[in-house]
Amino acid sequence: MVIIDHMPRLYILTSEKEEYRKSIEQANLPDLEFTDNLSEGEIVLGEPRMLREKLSQLPNLKWMQSMYAGVEALMDSSLRHDYTLTNARGVFGELMSEYVFGYLLAHEKKIFKRYESQQIKKYDRFESGWLRSKTIGLLGVGSIGVHLAGTAKHFGMTVYGFTRESETSKHVDKYFHGADILKFAEGLDYLVVVLPRTEGTNQIVNAELLNALPSHAILINVGRGNAVDDSALVEALTKGNIAGAVLDVTAREPLPQDHPFWATPNLLLTFHTSAISYPEDITRLFIENYHLYIEGKPLKYQVDFERGY
Amino acid sequence: MVIIDHMPRLYILTSEKEEYRKSIEQANLPDLEFTDNLSEGEIVLGEPRMLREKLSQLPNLKWMQSMYAGVEALMDSSLRHDYTLTNARGVFGELMSEYVFGYLLAHEKKIFKRYESQQIKKYDRFESGWLRSKTIGLLGVGSIGVHLAGTAKHFGMTVYGFTRESETSKHVDKYFHGADILKFAEGLDYLVVVLPRTEGTNQIVNAELLNALPSHAILINVGRGNAVDDSALVEALTKGNIAGAVLDVTAREPLPQDHPFWATPNLLLTFHTSAISYPEDITRLFIENYHLYIEGKPLKYQVDFERGY
Repeated sequence: MVIIDHMPRLYILTSEKEEYRKSIEQANLPDLEFTDNLSEGEIVLGEPRMLREKLSQLPNLKWMQSMYAGVEALMDSSLRHDYTLTNARGVFGELMSEYVFGYLLAHEKKIFKRYESQQIKKYDRFESGWLRSKTIGLLGVGSIGVHLAGTAKHFGMTVYGFTRESETSKHVDKYFHGADILKFAEGLDYLVVVLPRTEGTNQIVNAELLNALPSHAILINVGRGNAVDDSALVEALTKGNIAGAVLDVTAREPLPQDHPFWATPNLLLTFHTSAISYPEDITRLFIENYHLYIEGKPLKYQVDFERGY
Repeated sequence: MVIIDHMPRLYILTSEKEEYRKSIEQANLPDLEFTDNLSEGEIVLGEPRMLREKLSQLPNLKWMQSMYAGVEALMDSSLRHDYTLTNARGVFGELMSEYVFGYLLAHEKKIFKRYESQQIKKYDRFESGWLRSKTIGLLGVGSIGVHLAGTAKHFGMTVYGFTRESETSKHVDKYFHGADILKFAEGLDYLVVVLPRTEGTNQIVNAELLNALPSHAILINVGRGNAVDDSALVEALTKGNIAGAVLDVTAREPLPQDHPFWATPNLLLTFHTSAISYPEDITRLFIENYHLYIEGKPLKYQVDFERGY
């Protein structure tokens, strides 16, 4: 039942505008009109950083659907928060899972080392490691974390989750909170950071946490770069206090040419590519929320401006 | 209920004898005695190739539990087949799955290519591929194949199976047989060979089959090297008729120094390490079968000397 009494106008705010427009047009959404005039935009679908620049030109903005999970660009308390912000959730879990377990398996199966043996024609049967029975720790257990937990379970692993408060994923064997973060770290073979960027997540992966990890542990960051203390990580890897790190995100992106991460031992960089927004996935979320919007119902995946995610 | 009226004597025939003996001793199996005298051995636990050399010295042999899945060393019709041969099944699925999906993900996530970007300090955001929605073809759907199929399903893939006759894995979407092998190959993104070594599997991956694969396809062989026509594979990779191959097994092992595989483009070698027999796993199978043995019941995982696996 449509209860909105006008035709809501959608402004698409992304460099992939045409792709998104086509994808949404195919859905023939009731009453929806597209506009190329910012001042008419009631609904915006797009990139948080682009919206930040345009906020003052959108007098009619009521709802913004972000293409991304990360919406920190819109959180600053100096910015207006008089609209409903929904972010992309539930679409990145599969890709993130492929990425995280791809890198964990590459590590355990010693894929680089075997390639080196091949280069020197050495039929070298050193043993692989395995995921089965290992413990993975998720720093942040939102929709992506829950998906990672499910894949970990498929591979026969134990899953620890560190969260603000206990949640209910059937795939998480044990939750840790607050001051127990070091106890959480001590028991891990792999630590995967899946946190949003907020004040509370700044440098949560610091020297203390890195030192609490076993020396064979691998760190993967697919959340936001702010979560890691860069210098502490360089030191932990250089001294061999942990065995490796895979960073999809860094505090500064693109990573500056003179940053030590480029050449830190056992550190792999992947340049913010672990999960990309595909119009097909984002459009699905948008359509779902659009139907709620025109029925005057609460939208899904709403961001809490106070909490920051 | 034990119905055997004597103490069966076990001879352990592997270079890891002490490890296996300890592992079995811990189980305190009823009536079992260990022997270091081949002529007393009624039960042998060990490596097929080692047994082959000792067959004439085992007058009392009734049951051989192989540590491996592959038992081709014992199939030759010139060898005695007057004992029960059981092989290792159901223990390699997890490790094989880690290996196969590790290499598929390394390919899709472009792990080597991203590492090259890092080496030249290039913040290069080229897109990753993904497993989700891809089609994997299993050439051979035994216990390992079924496990691979389950992991493929976890990653949202379609699973085709090529077998002698249709089987019933709930994870296999479609079975192909006999002359339909080219039709099977045409639809695949990945072809994984999980076949035992028999006469019927010799060079089943030949030029015709390789040409039927799409040019973006990846071949992985974790079965036996005899399944692949080496020259045809070198040609397919050199001409770019397929995108890559990962060979854990080769017809000749160790691979001779002058074999073209060492330097064939987009071919990765892993030196028969994809799944190793761990005493803990093999002992579990042995114990399960030992209980059946002393109760006079049919053993599990019996090899058919006629069929060859």
